[in-house]
Amino acid sequence: MSLSEFSLIERFFARRARHDTRDAVLGIGDDCALLAPSPGELLAISTDMLVEGRHFLPDVDPHALGHKALAVNLSDLAAMGARPRAFTLALALQTPREDWLEAFSDGLFALAERYGCALIGGDTTRGPLNLCLTVFGDVPPDRALRRDAARAGDDIWVSGTLGDARAALGILRGEWPASLWEADEAAALKHALERPEPRVTLGLALRGIAHAALDISDGLAGDLAHILERSRVAATVDVDCVPRSRALRKLPADVQLRCALAGGDDYELCFTAPREAREAVLDAGAHAGVAVTRIGTISALREAADTPSIAWTDAAQTPLSLSLHGFDHFDAD
Amino acid sequence: MSLSEFSLIERFFARRARHDTRDAVLGIGDDCALLAPSPGELLAISTDMLVEGRHFLPDVDPHALGHKALAVNLSDLAAMGARPRAFTLALALQTPREDWLEAFSDGLFALAERYGCALIGGDTTRGPLNLCLTVFGDVPPDRALRRDAARAGDDIWVSGTLGDARAALGILRGEWPASLWEADEAAALKHALERPEPRVTLGLALRGIAHAALDISDGLAGDLAHILERSRVAATVDVDCVPRSRALRKLPADVQLRCALAGGDDYELCFTAPREAREAVLDAGAHAGVAVTRIGTISALREAADTPSIAWTDAAQTPLSLSLHGFDHFDAD
Repeated sequence: MSLSEFSLIERFFARRARHDTRDAVLGIGDDCALLAPSPGELLAISTDMLVEGRHFLPDVDPHALGHKALAVNLSDLAAMGARPRAFTLALALQTPREDWLEAFSDGLFALAERYGCALIGGDTTRGPLNLCLTVFGDVPPDRALRRDAARAGDDIWVSGTLGDARAALGILRGEWPASLWEADEAAALKHALERPEPRVTLGLALRGIAHAALDISDGLAGDLAHILERSRVAATVDVDCVPRSRALRKLPADVQLRCALAGGDDYELCFTAPREAREAVLDAGAHAGVAVTRIGTISALREAADTPSIAWTDAAQTPLSLSLHGFDHFDAD
Repeated sequence: MSLSEFSLIERFFARRARHDTRDAVLGIGDDCALLAPSPGELLAISTDMLVEGRHFLPDVDPHALGHKALAVNLSDLAAMGARPRAFTLALALQTPREDWLEAFSDGLFALAERYGCALIGGDTTRGPLNLCLTVFGDVPPDRALRRDAARAGDDIWVSGTLGDARAALGILRGEWPASLWEADEAAALKHALERPEPRVTLGLALRGIAHAALDISDGLAGDLAHILERSRVAATVDVDCVPRSRALRKLPADVQLRCALAGGDDYELCFTAPREAREAVLDAGAHAGVAVTRIGTISALREAADTPSIAWTDAAQTPLSLSLHGFDHFDAD
């Protein structure tokens, strides 16, 4: 790495990181950072790599990218019921530009500071734009929200509204005209795509209440399937219950549904909780300031060897046959 | 991510990871891995990003790349005196090829298993080839080998020999003819470039003996300067003492020196230890099966405001003026 790159790191990342490493015994500047979970707790660890063209568009606002790069990682901690502690950032850049780095680091640290998450280490190199963050959070061993903990009879819940990020991407791609929306609605969709809010507060509030949880990054249909596979259970989901924003409802009904069920990039939580916890779940949502909506139920597999699957119905309980394949947010295949 | 990519991960990484996650409470397959350091210890954490063209050449042997991607990260743990526990792997690939992934994962896991380091999480995406690993190791709080712990009067030591990786790169680049070397020497140089051995055992053996340590990735001159800056001390290094392999000695003397002092990609340890620990250091090297060589001494800054710097001398104590700039291993600037 050249000296000029060292000074870029120093300028935009390391100096700011030092102000905020009270939690880490040793932060940036040594071979390793040193960190321990709070006494009696475990470190929850997650890593995500963001690549131009798949996770963001080439002309992305760098401030929004800084936000989103950390947000999608904090969303993994939220889905585990973990409290954010620290993160590392590895960054490949073709040509480091000061204004770009300044906006990117501003967006990154604004979110990091909001959740008390300290930058404790990293790496920079020259190469095609690539961001790899690894986040660390604290969680008591018996209160982690795991994917394998759903039980027959559980309600299925989601936070927020689904499909907005996919609708925003469709505008950018010209799949539907921006003229469908009022300015405030279009702005809300763009915000959902560029600045997802990690549901950290909700994840913490659901400790001891929810059974299984994950964050929706690839679309509800695919992600809920992960809970079903890991928990060896089946699900019934009433698509008319799946929460959709006013803006999303401007799209044709079948497109709304595909955005909400298979659009991806939502970063809302999908979780299961026992029927008797309904009030506690609603209280958790109120505490976290985000709507939580019941969309279905978990059931036992009919036979142990069955493949876990989702039965989709409408509000009248009519079974639906949905074709959701190939609607991935950034699927370039 | 497409279904086919999920199955690639399952095939080459996740299945193998599961056999080896006894250390982690929860490994691959959930939103986060869960890990805690051994009781009373800290987690040492380091992240490195490897990019084609800067850290490896486009036609690199994927088995060697799998080895090296983990080796350079374990080298950071070694430099901290930390015991490897686990790692995460994020991988961007343009076109996943089975034979490539099989060889890459074989190289990766062969080294991981040797050091008891479990794969506990990761991410894969489509994009220009990029590898980002984050490693975790255990270290007791008061025994970590930090960069800021060098003291005036300390000896300066390095492990192994320096400059071999840079000599190998010079062959690949056509900077010097391969015909300078016998086949076994050329193979040894190539091995140094492609399959560096992380000095984990030496790092552990130096706990309680060495003061400061780091691993040499950018060249001795630049890396030793990091210890000096962090410790606020100066150094004198006798360049005739810097250990050079028989193969490196086939190059002209001035080129040898530039390879050994500024070539980079060595992944040997540079550390300081008090004079009275000389025998203990030699014992640690013998225990770890790697040569350790004393190359200089640490001294106090003449004035507190002085810039820490390295005084180079030869064996006759004659001061040398060296021009080492622009000899980086993969410097593409």
